[in-house]
Amino acid sequence: MRLTRFSDNALRCLMFLGHSDREISTVGEVARRMSMSEDHLLKVVKRLSQLGYVKTIRGRKGGLRLARSPEDINIAEVLRATEDNVAVVPCFDSSHEGCSISSVCQLAPAVELALAAFFATLQRYTLADLIKERRTALNALATAPSPGLAPSRPQLAVHA
Amino acid sequence: MRLTRFSDNALRCLMFLGHSDREISTVGEVARRMSMSEDHLLKVVKRLSQLGYVKTIRGRKGGLRLARSPEDINIAEVLRATEDNVAVVPCFDSSHEGCSISSVCQLAPAVELALAAFFATLQRYTLADLIKERRTALNALATAPSPGLAPSRPQLAVHA
Repeated sequence: MRLTRFSDNALRCLMFLGHSDREISTVGEVARRMSMSEDHLLKVVKRLSQLGYVKTIRGRKGGLRLARSPEDINIAEVLRATEDNVAVVPCFDSSHEGCSISSVCQLAPAVELALAAFFATLQRYTLADLIKERRTALNALATAPSPGLAPSRPQLAVHA
Repeated sequence: MRLTRFSDNALRCLMFLGHSDREISTVGEVARRMSMSEDHLLKVVKRLSQLGYVKTIRGRKGGLRLARSPEDINIAEVLRATEDNVAVVPCFDSSHEGCSISSVCQLAPAVELALAAFFATLQRYTLADLIKERRTALNALATAPSPGLAPSRPQLAVHA
């Protein structure tokens, strides 16, 4: 059982942008650091931009950044929007033919319930949770006693 | 998100055998009626036989039948045993390389929890539940008032 490559790369692109120290990252940099092809990443970015998760900036110093804060990006919603075909079993496809027991088969409702439980679990997570360790480490660094420096929330390379 | 073709065909093979009126079905018949290739079905049957779900009978009148009653075949257990790689995201694979945020990424534990919820739901289903309508229809037929015929449970083509 696998996510499609498209939604896997969408999640990883968002995680990279949420995790990066840089305000703006280029497609080339994300592709290289996350071992994706630039062509595929461009398609992923286009969809994430349409969905309002990513902001693309044109020009010589252009690139990508998150369009919302990581706390406002729900993982289940990203997956629901980027998995073009949540057909866990092939016969969920309307195009599927050739099964002699389809009229009595109760597999679909069972798998639909299981899938609902899968998404209900991921609904509890935001992008911020998935990159928490990094943020926790940064927070710890920022709030560590340091004479003359007031503890402050670290500036993430993310802007709503 | 999809099951592997292997586990999908394993489930469908079991459902066909549980649903069939015939005591023994041939590989050719299951393949033809469920639109699978015989070669692939043979691999599936070998695994289902090793796992104790299917009994193969040699000889001219040989073939396949369930090795347990449908009530004793748990759907989550079939999937766990036949999905050779429950790596919902590619980076679950130990062979996966090239992700620059793997050291801080919290995606794996989140998806593992979601997957546990998926399987916990399917754990409630047996093969009997998935082919229930057929059995309900047969039961209704068998228990309908019919002078001179005592109501009886229909004989399914399944033997423990």
